[in-house]
Formats: sequence, C-alpha cells, structure tokens
Amino acid sequence: MSILCVGSVALDSVETPSAKAERVLGGSAVFFASAATLFNPVQLVGVVGDDYPLDQLDFLARRGADLSGIEEREGKSFFWAGRYYNNLNSRDTLATELGVFADFQPKIPAQFRDSRYVFLGNIHPQLQHDVLDQVESPEVVACDTMNYWIEGSREPLVSLLERVRILMVNDEEARQLAGEPNLMKAARWIRERGPEIVIVKKGEHGAILFADDWLFFVPGFPLEEVFDPTGAGDAFAGGFMGHLAAAGSLDTADLRRAMVYGSVMGSFAVERFSVDRLIDLPTDAIEARMKQFREMTAFETHAVVEQRV
Amino acid sequence: MSILCVGSVALDSVETPSAKAERVLGGSAVFFASAATLFNPVQLVGVVGDDYPLDQLDFLARRGADLSGIEEREGKSFFWAGRYYNNLNSRDTLATELGVFADFQPKIPAQFRDSRYVFLGNIHPQLQHDVLDQVESPEVVACDTMNYWIEGSREPLVSLLERVRILMVNDEEARQLAGEPNLMKAARWIRERGPEIVIVKKGEHGAILFADDWLFFVPGFPLEEVFDPTGAGDAFAGGFMGHLAAAGSLDTADLRRAMVYGSVMGSFAVERFSVDRLIDLPTDAIEARMKQFREMTAFETHAVVEQRV
Repeated sequence: MSILCVGSVALDSVETPSAKAERVLGGSAVFFASAATLFNPVQLVGVVGDDYPLDQLDFLARRGADLSGIEEREGKSFFWAGRYYNNLNSRDTLATELGVFADFQPKIPAQFRDSRYVFLGNIHPQLQHDVLDQVESPEVVACDTMNYWIEGSREPLVSLLERVRILMVNDEEARQLAGEPNLMKAARWIRERGPEIVIVKKGEHGAILFADDWLFFVPGFPLEEVFDPTGAGDAFAGGFMGHLAAAGSLDTADLRRAMVYGSVMGSFAVERFSVDRLIDLPTDAIEARMKQFREMTAFETHAVVEQRV
Repeated sequence: MSILCVGSVALDSVETPSAKAERVLGGSAVFFASAATLFNPVQLVGVVGDDYPLDQLDFLARRGADLSGIEEREGKSFFWAGRYYNNLNSRDTLATELGVFADFQPKIPAQFRDSRYVFLGNIHPQLQHDVLDQVESPEVVACDTMNYWIEGSREPLVSLLERVRILMVNDEEARQLAGEPNLMKAARWIRERGPEIVIVKKGEHGAILFADDWLFFVPGFPLEEVFDPTGAGDAFAGGFMGHLAAAGSLDTADLRRAMVYGSVMGSFAVERFSVDRLIDLPTDAIEARMKQFREMTAFETHAVVEQRV
C-alpha cells in the first residue's frame, strides 16, 4: 500500500562550517520520499517551477515512487538557503523564495485518492485539510508542522489534529502548541485533541513516541561528523511511515521499530548534503544501524544468574 | 565492599515556581550517599560547621553509611541557595557561602583507606588528587567535576584524569574540557587522557556511557512534575556506583544496568526537595522504575514471525 506524501519539493543551498552545496534537492516531500521508498512505495504530490531538475528524482521512481502528482508550473521552484554554525545546532536562514510554492493548491490525482497511509509534510494547515478532503478513506494520517503555523494559523491546525492519527513535532513546537512547558503534559494536551500518537523529535537527543498508556524513547545516533542537518526530521518521518506501511501494522512492536527506523534514516540523512546519502543506501547498512541502535540501548534488568534463582 | 565518597555536605535553600525549602540537606556527598546506600554501604568524608543537623543523616547510617569521616568544625556549613524558573531547566544561584568548606582538606580515616571503590564528588581537582594519595589501592575511581574547575584548574584536572577510571560530566563540560563541540570526539579526547569510561549527563535528555568500542544510552525518565532538579547528577552517580559496587563487576551488562540505576535514582531525586524522596524509597519502587526504563527503550529489530523464517 503506497504512502501518499504531500509537501515541498525544493532546491536548497546549504553552507556548513566545512563545505557548501548549491541548489541541491530539498523539501519535505523529497526528504520523506528518499527515506520512505527504501521501505515502501510512495506517491508524491507537490509543485515545482520550470527550473527544477526533475531528472534528479529518477532514483525515487526507480524505487517505486509515483511522481505523477508533482505539478510543473511556469516560474521558480521553492528555494531555501541556510548557513549552519559550530556544532551544527544553530542556523541562519539566508533566503526563502517561495516561487510557485506560494500558491500551491495540492491536487490529489484520481489514482492516489484511495491511499490509506498519508504523510502531510510541513505546509499550511489549511492545505493539509484540503489534502485530506480529497482522500477517500485515509487510515493512517501523519502530520508535521512548525512554529510558523502554530503561531499564525493556530485554528486550522488545532482542527486538523482531529483528523490526524500521528503528529510529529519537535520539543519546542510541542510545548508551544500546548502552551505547556512539561513535555509529558504537552503530549497529553495534543493527544486529547485527536492524535493517538504524538512523536516529539529532539534532534541530537533523539525522539519520544507518546501513546495512550505507554511511551517509547529512541536516542539520536551519535555521529562524529554531522555534515548537514537539513531534512533530518523528514527523513525520520520517511523511515517511520515507510516501516509502518511495509509492516501493515500499527501494533506496539511495529511502532517501536518504526521509531528506530526513523532515527536510522535521520542519522543517515545528516551524513551528506541533500538526500545524497539516501540515494544508494543499501538495505544492509540500514539493518546494521538498527542493530547498533539496539546495542546502544539494550539492557537486562537483572543478571541472568539472578533470574535463575 | 564500601564505596568511599568525598564531597560537599551542605545546606541548600531552594525556590521553585511552586514551592520553597529552607536550609535542607544538600551537597554532592549527601545526594550521592542517599542514592548509593540503597545498593551498597558508603563511607563518607566531608566537613560541616557546628550548625549542621547531623542527626538528619541518621537514615544514611541506618542504611550502612559510615559517617565517621565527616569532620565537624567551628563555623558555618557550606550553604547554597538557588531559584529555578519555568520548566526548571534554568536557575539562578542566589548565594554560595563556603563556610568551613573553604579550607576543606579531606582526611581519609585509617579504616577507609583500603577502599577499592571511590567517588570523588565535585571539589577542587587538587583535593581530588589528595584523596587518591591517601587511598591504598583504589580500583574503581569515579570522578565528577564542573565548568568552574575546567576553566580555573585545568592542569590538576587533566592530570587527575590519568588516575580516574570513570569520569562523569555533563555535555557542556565534556565539550569544554576537550575543546571539541562534537560529543563523540570530546568523549574520545577525554578517554585518551585516562578514563576507560566517560559518562556524559544530559539532564532531561538522559546520559551516554562511552567505553572503548561501545556506548550505551539511557534516556531521562519523563516526569509530569520535576519538583527540584538539585542533586540529580549526584543521585545518578550514587545509583551508578552503588550498583557497580554491589555487583562487584564492571562488565558490560553491569555497566549498562548501572547507567539505568543511575537514571532511576536521578529521576526519584527530582521528585521532591533535597534527598526527601530517597529517604524511605522502597526497593520495589526502584525495580519497578527499572522495568519502566526497559519498556521505554526495548524493541526487537525484526518481527518474531520474520525471525522464524
């Protein structure tokens, strides 16, 4: 079952303390699909200008992405430029040129409307509503958002929560949305407004999944070189949703695995510019990193000898 | 085998957004011992003034702490006052009155000198050297420190690393000590100077243990109410060292369990003022929280049905 993904398809220029990339593949839908297609087919919906190097998305098509929902319009593609500092935890936005994305009105192609898995990338909450209006019977709807919408478009965002099963936000966004500094309480506030599952992303500190009566914690993968943090959150979402759709299950064990697959994909994404690390990433490398996550977190509450007593 | 613990024995006045405590038990040695004695006997070395309510430490003696190394001198006890804000992640120090602690010269009583487990609380690195000079054959030496010593007493601190098997610092201190923003590299820098094991504490984000060719991550326990964060790091150290000494082992499985016991004790410590939560803490509660940590982090890399294929 394909995952319908709606989000930005952009070009990014990124500067880090050690290197620079000009007009490379970016945008939430592109990062999401680059991770998710390693697990499960994806249907992409977005808009690009006539300057977009669509041939560079061929690797997605080869992995089972259906790109027929990417509308090509006259004008410029969404362009973002940013510069990272120090240990890459702070950044300045140097440019945000919306281009044709400014009046993006997602049109879900007829052949995508029976999708049961939907990922709503970080776009205006009203557009996220519009997407869901066009999908016949969405079952697993995951949604990303950001402080900009929490501040400026609170009403459609809060009403969207009723239609969303999984909300993914970072810790500051969760606190801001709920108006509550304690993360546990903030997650409960959000869950009471709709989502069964709230995933709070904490960057290098990992991510927490909050469900009804349980939670699951996955650490960030400790890397000696974080090359470019752009897109890590969307790659996380791609690994997470990719696993869920492939497993066809939202049971506890699969939600836990999905969290780790998400963290695995986020950790790969930051190792190179753009989606470069995800293009030829072998399945073996993904599974090997899964095992590293397990080794990093597994413990027995008692020594085996005590258990035998 | 008792753990020798040298550190401050203090009085704290603490204000949080919701409550206030005046001149309650505090200091690194007191927090450490309050956690560690739930696992293993502790020998305490410190200094107090004639204003110290030593009878309030009776609960430690009842749990197997030897308090005969706490010197009582004329004058005032070390006093610290602080105020916490918002979600308790920021604080102001309102007063630091060293009192008799200002010329603390740790004297290790003869009956403590054969200790093999030693915890050096956060005091001047030269005093930490002096402690080790008095211990006959220390085997497992763990050491805490802080930015103040990293900046002002770098030389004795760096030479101390050669004598320390386990260094416990927070993430900013690790970066500062190594002059390296990347945590993995900072931990390696520190390990190259002596400690086999570096534990980086990240407050609510948990803690990481770095060893030769492996690492272990434990999350912070998500609490709906963090009441008073004072002493969480020392309670962590107490749970960690307490388990290691009780197990009599530094093997990988016990180091992992020790990390979780440390996190468990840190999470209890912050639930009340001072060491209040640790005074009557039942073993059952500790073991129950251990299990909660396991449930919060455990996952299988593959569904069981796939493993059977």
